[in-house]
Amino acid sequence: MVGNRKRILTGDRPTGRLHLGHWVGSLQNRVLLQDDYDCFFILADLHTLTTRPEKEALAQVPDHIRDSVLDYLAAGIDPERASIFVQSAVPETAELNLLLMMLVSVPRLERLPSIKDMADAAHLDVLPFGLLGYPVLQAADILLPRAQVVPVGKDNVPHVEITREIARRFNNLYGEVFPEPEAMVSEVPSLPGIYGMQKMSKSLGNAILLADSPDVVRQRVMQMYTDPNRIRADIPGNVDGNPVFIYHDAFNRDVDEVNDLKERYRAGRVGDVEVKQKLFRAIELVLEPMRERRARFESRPGMVAEVLDAGNRRARAVAAETMALVREAMGITYYR
Amino acid sequence: MVGNRKRILTGDRPTGRLHLGHWVGSLQNRVLLQDDYDCFFILADLHTLTTRPEKEALAQVPDHIRDSVLDYLAAGIDPERASIFVQSAVPETAELNLLLMMLVSVPRLERLPSIKDMADAAHLDVLPFGLLGYPVLQAADILLPRAQVVPVGKDNVPHVEITREIARRFNNLYGEVFPEPEAMVSEVPSLPGIYGMQKMSKSLGNAILLADSPDVVRQRVMQMYTDPNRIRADIPGNVDGNPVFIYHDAFNRDVDEVNDLKERYRAGRVGDVEVKQKLFRAIELVLEPMRERRARFESRPGMVAEVLDAGNRRARAVAAETMALVREAMGITYYR
Repeated sequence: MVGNRKRILTGDRPTGRLHLGHWVGSLQNRVLLQDDYDCFFILADLHTLTTRPEKEALAQVPDHIRDSVLDYLAAGIDPERASIFVQSAVPETAELNLLLMMLVSVPRLERLPSIKDMADAAHLDVLPFGLLGYPVLQAADILLPRAQVVPVGKDNVPHVEITREIARRFNNLYGEVFPEPEAMVSEVPSLPGIYGMQKMSKSLGNAILLADSPDVVRQRVMQMYTDPNRIRADIPGNVDGNPVFIYHDAFNRDVDEVNDLKERYRAGRVGDVEVKQKLFRAIELVLEPMRERRARFESRPGMVAEVLDAGNRRARAVAAETMALVREAMGITYYR
Repeated sequence: MVGNRKRILTGDRPTGRLHLGHWVGSLQNRVLLQDDYDCFFILADLHTLTTRPEKEALAQVPDHIRDSVLDYLAAGIDPERASIFVQSAVPETAELNLLLMMLVSVPRLERLPSIKDMADAAHLDVLPFGLLGYPVLQAADILLPRAQVVPVGKDNVPHVEITREIARRFNNLYGEVFPEPEAMVSEVPSLPGIYGMQKMSKSLGNAILLADSPDVVRQRVMQMYTDPNRIRADIPGNVDGNPVFIYHDAFNRDVDEVNDLKERYRAGRVGDVEVKQKLFRAIELVLEPMRERRARFESRPGMVAEVLDAGNRRARAVAAETMALVREAMGITYYR
């Protein structure tokens, strides 16, 4: 890729179709980043094994990968500029993972609250060894393309910190191979689901998917929770923490309209229906161009496979380059 | 290799020249096993990283590998029948290791006393994540050639047990791919060093190396501890637990001579010098043919590289076959 641009690694576990929460939290940012960075977007299928190794879960991964790629493309990620690739298509990942496992301690990994949280969320009563190694595998993903920047949500900053420690340890032991990647922390708070309270999540049934039809989107917006004390339109309502207004702030580019709605809402001079209809229109301004792009990509048979082939090839080429440097630095000479 | 023979995986970490303790405990058995089994002998260089990732330690590995191969060949391992290979030359090892990490729990690994023993022996004050994964990497080594039999010392039986559990878990989740390998436990107690007490070990300075010259061997045998109460040849001595007689039992094929020496020793009718000279002759009967074979192999430049190339190729071919089965069973389709 172009020489002077810094390299980015970020991505998702392929767990299903992406929703508005993904768009707010990461996707819209990625679309912007591809202008200035050499972006590698990973679909981390091997990471799904850390909590869900069952065959039934694995069987869904190819569909989830396909859906994720289509969502990326629909959102505006340009496969000519960015590399979208599948983790398991890069065998160097496992090799680097094995080497990095030696450079971090068990207590260091056990101190991360995220590991226990993931185990709890997956209802696991014992910790799989592979789940304790989740951040090591992430470090391999990040260091393999020698990424300098890692866009993450606040929750994932400690994982980038472990990657930095591992990179530093490697460089100290064997000589400078890896940049210490910097976390680019998203300041956007995570989007609540349409019923408020919990974070948007497909499995909680409170999501609006990027691929939803206008009818479904309208229906979901109309179902949204608002201020529960406002049982009539002429009762003054609360804007802060109110899901419809959080969504207006996230999606509605017409700031004057949003301010006007908030003012009238506080004064009891606007009905929920008007607020929601305007929100629906704002969300549609985001989703409508995605639908057009999606339709264009879906109409080209083999498009997803082509995008992944190209991305996997680029990811493997960089990975092979890095592993040659790693083996050279460590003095591992028997390979091949 | 020949179709009906069961497959064996065993080997060593390449940590230096092999000694009489290795010959007694494993090498002599391996030489016999190659007649009846399809043998894979691994030089597990990646395992050395679990306790010694430092560059200085790694820098010695190529020499250690060369020495190990020469010791194997000298001992009578036939590279035409058995495959001697280097762990890091088989990249599928890392791939299978990563997948198997998901199938064993942290508490299960933490329960193994061997892990803590290795950490203590290496004077590590925190447990490296890779060291906790030592048995998982061993499982990958064993399962990659789908070995049915694993010759091990008693200490290593719990590691084979973990491999069996992982194989069972894999087969239950994804369908039958791996045989559950059986431990073939060596009944031979470990050989004490020449000063008695501790086990023979190069780093303790109490070893007789397979590559030692006759002069060095004679000198080492003459230095051996015997019964400390026997300050003159006419004092009745103790045979049980006496290093010279443990060695006679291990090396001297002339059972009548050994029995005669023991009888006279107990009766105070033989000098230490005679006992040791006869032991020296018995050990030389083992080492002399090794020296001849070693000289022959060392005189052929590139011999070690050739042996390893052939072994690595065979190990990779089987590993590639196994990983195709593994990916097929799990439904991992993006690879290559």
